[in-house]
Amino acid sequence: MAEQLGTLEELPQDYRDAMTEAGVAPLWPMMRKVLPHGRPQPTTKPSYWNYGDLRPLLLRAGDLTPVEKAERRVLVMSDQGRGTGAMQATSSIYIGLQLLLPGEVAPAHKHTPSAARIIVEGKGGYTVVDGEKLPMNRGDVVLTPGGEWHDHGHEGDEPVVWLDALDLPLFVYLEGSYAEEAPLQAQRNRPDASMVEYLASGLKPSKRGASARRYPMMRFPWDRTEAALREMAKYTEGAVELDYVNPETGQDVLPTMGFTAMMLRPGETLRPPLSSESAVFHVIGGTGTSVIDGASFDWAERDTFTAPVFAEIDHTNTGDEPAFLVRVHDRPLQEKLGYYEERAR
Amino acid sequence: MAEQLGTLEELPQDYRDAMTEAGVAPLWPMMRKVLPHGRPQPTTKPSYWNYGDLRPLLLRAGDLTPVEKAERRVLVMSDQGRGTGAMQATSSIYIGLQLLLPGEVAPAHKHTPSAARIIVEGKGGYTVVDGEKLPMNRGDVVLTPGGEWHDHGHEGDEPVVWLDALDLPLFVYLEGSYAEEAPLQAQRNRPDASMVEYLASGLKPSKRGASARRYPMMRFPWDRTEAALREMAKYTEGAVELDYVNPETGQDVLPTMGFTAMMLRPGETLRPPLSSESAVFHVIGGTGTSVIDGASFDWAERDTFTAPVFAEIDHTNTGDEPAFLVRVHDRPLQEKLGYYEERAR
Amino acid sequence: MAEQLGTLEELPQDYRDAMTEAGVAPLWPMMRKVLPHGRPQPTTKPSYWNYGDLRPLLLRAGDLTPVEKAERRVLVMSDQGRGTGAMQATSSIYIGLQLLLPGEVAPAHKHTPSAARIIVEGKGGYTVVDGEKLPMNRGDVVLTPGGEWHDHGHEGDEPVVWLDALDLPLFVYLEGSYAEEAPLQAQRNRPDASMVEYLASGLKPSKRGASARRYPMMRFPWDRTEAALREMAKYTEGAVELDYVNPETGQDVLPTMGFTAMMLRPGETLRPPLSSESAVFHVIGGTGTSVIDGASFDWAERDTFTAPVFAEIDHTNTGDEPAFLVRVHDRPLQEKLGYYEERAR
Amino acid sequence: MAEQLGTLEELPQDYRDAMTEAGVAPLWPMMRKVLPHGRPQPTTKPSYWNYGDLRPLLLRAGDLTPVEKAERRVLVMSDQGRGTGAMQATSSIYIGLQLLLPGEVAPAHKHTPSAARIIVEGKGGYTVVDGEKLPMNRGDVVLTPGGEWHDHGHEGDEPVVWLDALDLPLFVYLEGSYAEEAPLQAQRNRPDASMVEYLASGLKPSKRGASARRYPMMRFPWDRTEAALREMAKYTEGAVELDYVNPETGQDVLPTMGFTAMMLRPGETLRPPLSSESAVFHVIGGTGTSVIDGASFDWAERDTFTAPVFAEIDHTNTGDEPAFLVRVHDRPLQEKLGYYEERAR
Repeated sequence: MAEQLGTLEELPQDYRDAMTEAGVAPLWPMMRKVLPHGRPQPTTKPSYWNYGDLRPLLLRAGDLTPVEKAERRVLVMSDQGRGTGAMQATSSIYIGLQLLLPGEVAPAHKHTPSAARIIVEGKGGYTVVDGEKLPMNRGDVVLTPGGEWHDHGHEGDEPVVWLDALDLPLFVYLEGSYAEEAPLQAQRNRPDASMVEYLASGLKPSKRGASARRYPMMRFPWDRTEAALREMAKYTEGAVELDYVNPETGQDVLPTMGFTAMMLRPGETLRPPLSSESAVFHVIGGTGTSVIDGASFDWAERDTFTAPVFAEIDHTNTGDEPAFLVRVHDRPLQEKLGYYEERAR
Repeated sequence: MAEQLGTLEELPQDYRDAMTEAGVAPLWPMMRKVLPHGRPQPTTKPSYWNYGDLRPLLLRAGDLTPVEKAERRVLVMSDQGRGTGAMQATSSIYIGLQLLLPGEVAPAHKHTPSAARIIVEGKGGYTVVDGEKLPMNRGDVVLTPGGEWHDHGHEGDEPVVWLDALDLPLFVYLEGSYAEEAPLQAQRNRPDASMVEYLASGLKPSKRGASARRYPMMRFPWDRTEAALREMAKYTEGAVELDYVNPETGQDVLPTMGFTAMMLRPGETLRPPLSSESAVFHVIGGTGTSVIDGASFDWAERDTFTAPVFAEIDHTNTGDEPAFLVRVHDRPLQEKLGYYEERAR
Repeated sequence: MAEQLGTLEELPQDYRDAMTEAGVAPLWPMMRKVLPHGRPQPTTKPSYWNYGDLRPLLLRAGDLTPVEKAERRVLVMSDQGRGTGAMQATSSIYIGLQLLLPGEVAPAHKHTPSAARIIVEGKGGYTVVDGEKLPMNRGDVVLTPGGEWHDHGHEGDEPVVWLDALDLPLFVYLEGSYAEEAPLQAQRNRPDASMVEYLASGLKPSKRGASARRYPMMRFPWDRTEAALREMAKYTEGAVELDYVNPETGQDVLPTMGFTAMMLRPGETLRPPLSSESAVFHVIGGTGTSVIDGASFDWAERDTFTAPVFAEIDHTNTGDEPAFLVRVHDRPLQEKLGYYEERAR
Repeated sequence: MAEQLGTLEELPQDYRDAMTEAGVAPLWPMMRKVLPHGRPQPTTKPSYWNYGDLRPLLLRAGDLTPVEKAERRVLVMSDQGRGTGAMQATSSIYIGLQLLLPGEVAPAHKHTPSAARIIVEGKGGYTVVDGEKLPMNRGDVVLTPGGEWHDHGHEGDEPVVWLDALDLPLFVYLEGSYAEEAPLQAQRNRPDASMVEYLASGLKPSKRGASARRYPMMRFPWDRTEAALREMAKYTEGAVELDYVNPETGQDVLPTMGFTAMMLRPGETLRPPLSSESAVFHVIGGTGTSVIDGASFDWAERDTFTAPVFAEIDHTNTGDEPAFLVRVHDRPLQEKLGYYEERAR
């Protein structure tokens, strides 16, 4: 390894001008920046959003902007390493809080990026995907995969809020992001598959040779998830974590984003290994403190925070009840690209 | 297609002798037999066993033969196309009724064929596989896959009976069947994964990069299966069928044998398409009549019957309650070999 | 492990009669036979056929039986453990020598079993599969996979002979074997893909999203295979073996049967590990001696011999030139069933 | 679809300030930009580099900067939509011309991004990957996959130049890019697998159960590729294209980048369908004109040009000989992410 590579300034100006003219540039002055030694140097910083702070801003958006002028009434949560306005919470993951008021509809569209919703508050909201009308209850994870038509509605009488997570930044970067709109879809002709077809683990509808849908299960009800975490915790030492998977394949539910439900016992501290994944944590219930690369966040129900790649993370449950979080991460993407990695702390 | 192929008898005797000497034989006189036109001509016949008839015979085996002299105290159910003594219920599937008396143990062994147990009666029995102690309750499907050490025990106070299903005939035919014995295993160090790790559909333990076990879930409790069938029946017209799958992959639970839970509504008749699979049906609950290639079987709880390949099958629930069956079949094998086929009736 | 299991004779006659009546039989008297300890006990015996002995018998079949009366004029090579007439060379593999005379055609049919041909002698024969007219030259491996229409013809002026290898015994056993006949196919509209689409390793036709055919390459010319073996031998110590694979997937070319080209250097002896596969060896060129479970076979060009499961095998090249063999085996089947196994000698 | 979404300016300043303070931003003013209607709006512009123009600049880099001060002496070719200095030729693909002078070595390193080299001129260069010393001849494609140690050397007596293609931009964007350096590797203990193990299509080394290396074939010699293209052209109408694949799996050779060899017959014009892939074209031989989204490039041997996503492309061979190009594209990435798409023109 060379101690010191040549710099741009060491090259004669006429040579630099000729290169610019020819549309080329020397690699070596930039090489250490794009290929740092030993680990990436992320721009992303650990970031934290208190739901109590955001909720009034979100409700005010409801006052100021009718859903017809917004299509999706969302406050984007910007990585603080990039600054407010950045449409990414980590390098690959976008998150935002979306508000739907009673009686409103968010019209049907589809887009190349994939989305998932984690329901934060309110009753009566629903999402329709591929003919299935999916109820949205606190803590549920509801998918709207890339390329699937979807719309949202609200049959309740109080504001409904959910957290959107998308792989939008990656698709924008790759120049692969676009959408198509349609008049509000009429078909709601199929019951929710998680209620009908995938009620029990280890069982799936017998297809007699027919191939399964690509995204067979699009709602993961929180009550089942919490029950499974609590049961697992009885028999397991250390981390209690369940990955959300496609029941037809056992693979992650979306191509690039993974979802993991986590439970921390009262008083417990988890120190996961360093990992190449970046992550968003949303608190379903309980209170705690997470220290991420030295930044300390006290969290409670409905709060959200992030961790960059290879972050040192300590999560502590500071309450008397189990704490529950859903982690959104890009491990599925990194595994497809062949570079997912963990390191002992 | 030739009207008539040459026969063995048309060949000169000296030629036939010379062929025998050389270890060869002409194909054409045998060709129509091994390659019949249009569909196979199975030897297997539809067969039926009434549990009330078999139970006393099985209990008498308990009196006559201590488990130490039997290792597995089983009455093999022989395809009636081949005759009693045949160790196969269809071309590829072996079934038998196994009895374990209170306090008995069936010592640890492993073998190349795979087995599954459907529990028929009795409480307190258990199977240990790979360190997991699996309770055996009425209707549960419990796997002991090929190559896995397993033993059985009984902590209750009445006879326990289960139906064994194995791909033993195939392995014997392929000259691949053998076993290894061991002193009774001590390790029972893991709780039942279906209670701990795979409680809810669409969730699996987060492995953080570690690969899953090949057979992660080895017990499929009946209560969950029945609940899932009943829920599915509310929203589905026609056949209500759930396949048992490996929750890590969505694939069939064993390499060659598939398991499908079926529900028939009161009064309902199902006429499935003709299929290349052979099948064993075990009645978990309810009463009905099945007509299979013209043979009519009246069945009730705990009875067992079979259907050969391409059988014409009518199942009718003749009772006032839903009827439940578990079908054991060789579709997974046929799909791996590339020839699974269905035909409209 | 019990020293001695109970026997059938130890059971009272009235009990035995009642079991027969009920269609059941006790397992334990038969258990050691179907689950022998530690390794299978094959019926299959090492068998050997000298081509010089078989050739006159095959030509006489040409005199005695016109192809119209035979459809396929084949002498089946019977495992000597089962005796002449047995339609299997090992438990899963059928082989036979097929003769086609100048101008003859073997009409189109398809069947569930898969076949491969290794060309033994003669020029001008061809096979048509799925519209591809495949030349048949000495040593080529030509596939006619299960379910594919195929016919044979002969445009040369001397007898053509090839070795057929099929998974027919397995399909017959599974009651899955049947055929369909058709008038001789007219379509010969595609050139041989191995000449056009798969000329070079590591390259395949760009499909722009279209899925590949299930069996994209159906002829594996011997000249390329021999050249590849010779080149590999320069750089490799010990066994020089190449598996025939589907170039679109890298998987075995047929669902149950594998094909492996082998080269032995002059004077070399190979002692492969014990393996659960059964095998047929066909000599493409050279002379040698193979000792298989104690039976010694001297072989030369065009001879054929077999080895049962877990056989102890020594192959020695006794000539001055490299020797070449093609091994047909059932490892692909055993891997699909999850029990392929090797053991050190 | 709303005619007009709300703008940032329509929101009260105090609300905008409060959002900034809270680390959030409204989605709707930015939504059309990140989710344009119907297709992406790429920043990438078609770009072209004449080798005759670049070669003197590259040789001057050899004079000005010893390899010890550069590690990799490369002129990066910048997408003209982003301007000179941009380290990407399309959104996901980096290319550059690398110079190695006689006797120089580029020391061993490994990095998370994957690279491939297309050799442009000069004899005697080589790359070592995983113990294999890979000769670099005109037109060869040589891989150095992510995570594999590799170094370069030069045993000839004239400058060696190759085109590097990497998925570096994607890895930098994802905060996943880093490198490790090592003293120059000593091991060169394996011959080139493309010469030894993968000489013929449809054959691979018999592994007897061992799993194959992840990247078994790392050099794809041009002479074989050209011969395969010429043979394919005899039998094929329209586009003659071969994808570079892993011979063990039939999959693309690298996780994110695909390589396709193309032949244009004299006078032929190809108008491929619109596609979501972005692409780099490098001319191995021949002369022609390509019109890409209206920009017209006249090209000859060793030139390079690019096309953004969904570009309208016409390639015309204007010479008297076949023209050959290698296309580097990101279809493998897009297929893994589930959004690869083609549209008729």
